[in-house]
Amino acid sequence: MRLRNKPWAVKLVDEHPESVLQDPNPEIKIDWEKRFEDFSRPLEVEIGSGKGQFITTLAQKHPDRNYIAIELQTTAAGIILRTKLEKKLDNLQILRGDAISIASFFAENSVDVLYLNFSDPWPKTRHEKRRLTYKDFLKNYETILKPTGHLEFKTDNSGLFSYSLMSLNNYGMMFDFVSVDLHHESEEIVAKNVETEYEHKFASKGNPIYALHAHFN
Amino acid sequence: MRLRNKPWAVKLVDEHPESVLQDPNPEIKIDWEKRFEDFSRPLEVEIGSGKGQFITTLAQKHPDRNYIAIELQTTAAGIILRTKLEKKLDNLQILRGDAISIASFFAENSVDVLYLNFSDPWPKTRHEKRRLTYKDFLKNYETILKPTGHLEFKTDNSGLFSYSLMSLNNYGMMFDFVSVDLHHESEEIVAKNVETEYEHKFASKGNPIYALHAHFN
Repeated sequence: MRLRNKPWAVKLVDEHPESVLQDPNPEIKIDWEKRFEDFSRPLEVEIGSGKGQFITTLAQKHPDRNYIAIELQTTAAGIILRTKLEKKLDNLQILRGDAISIASFFAENSVDVLYLNFSDPWPKTRHEKRRLTYKDFLKNYETILKPTGHLEFKTDNSGLFSYSLMSLNNYGMMFDFVSVDLHHESEEIVAKNVETEYEHKFASKGNPIYALHAHFN
Repeated sequence: MRLRNKPWAVKLVDEHPESVLQDPNPEIKIDWEKRFEDFSRPLEVEIGSGKGQFITTLAQKHPDRNYIAIELQTTAAGIILRTKLEKKLDNLQILRGDAISIASFFAENSVDVLYLNFSDPWPKTRHEKRRLTYKDFLKNYETILKPTGHLEFKTDNSGLFSYSLMSLNNYGMMFDFVSVDLHHESEEIVAKNVETEYEHKFASKGNPIYALHAHFN
């Protein structure tokens, strides 16, 4: 979702290069080790974090894991950064950049969990290649995920969900969890779910939330 | 769905052994060739046909294909039979029996399409093995389907659909089509969809219909 430009956010991002990496050069390996207190911890990455409700909640809940929020918009990155600073989330880094370059952001076999939350559905067939579950993206995810790693995908968009089920299945991925109505699953599953800001708004209107967890073979 | 017992239906079924095969002995190979005018035509089978709106519509639409309706309830079988006789559907046979024995009903590699429509969801975990998309059933479907054959599954039950996506994917089946909102797909897809009587009632309340087409690898 496009946010209105907020000058304070741009300024804040520029003032905190230690927390936000901007448009990294794909030719140069990012030194994540330097950016985290203990890089041996599990690494979880969200692609398209928006205002960051999901990833900052996770980072607070699991101080023993490292988190990276990838977000293209500077204003959104600034909002995530503000929360990070307020809550002192030392285990969270922000990468302001385009998911299209994700394979250059991480070493092979380095990521434990990849989160795709409420990605742009790109409903037109001619834009299929831009969907974050298109096979070329899956290939990149396969490269950067550890062999024990997995992908977690949520959306409210029925077209994108149907497409993604097809795409991940046809790629040969194994499903670990599927729900076509996440907010009405068992109490245990609902309690474990961490909402994004968009999810909260959408689900409160009674619309279904779709979820899929899968790993590469 | 259980129907009230209709004496006329039981009588009609008993009077038409040439159209309805009842509780066939699993030890004896069924001679389908004898029961169809031209058994070289494509063979399509529905498991759990209910009152038969789906399969009788298909049989009328495609006189160049053979159809078999499997249905456990005699009353339902009688209602399908009545339609068959009224519409003179020579390309439709009815098997009154239990899908659990499906592997004994057909020769290996003999079925082109298997339809599972609005099967009993068996929501309790301890009843998982009764769901028609449980892996033991899939194994049977794999045996009777031709290598070029496929499965078409529809349901309104979110739990059964999520389960089935997992089950078919984990079995190694390849998805050919997925929809989590079949009645709101493109005009072309909606126009091609043949409704069951149950689907019609359910969808008209605005509830989503889920669909999955898949083949064995």
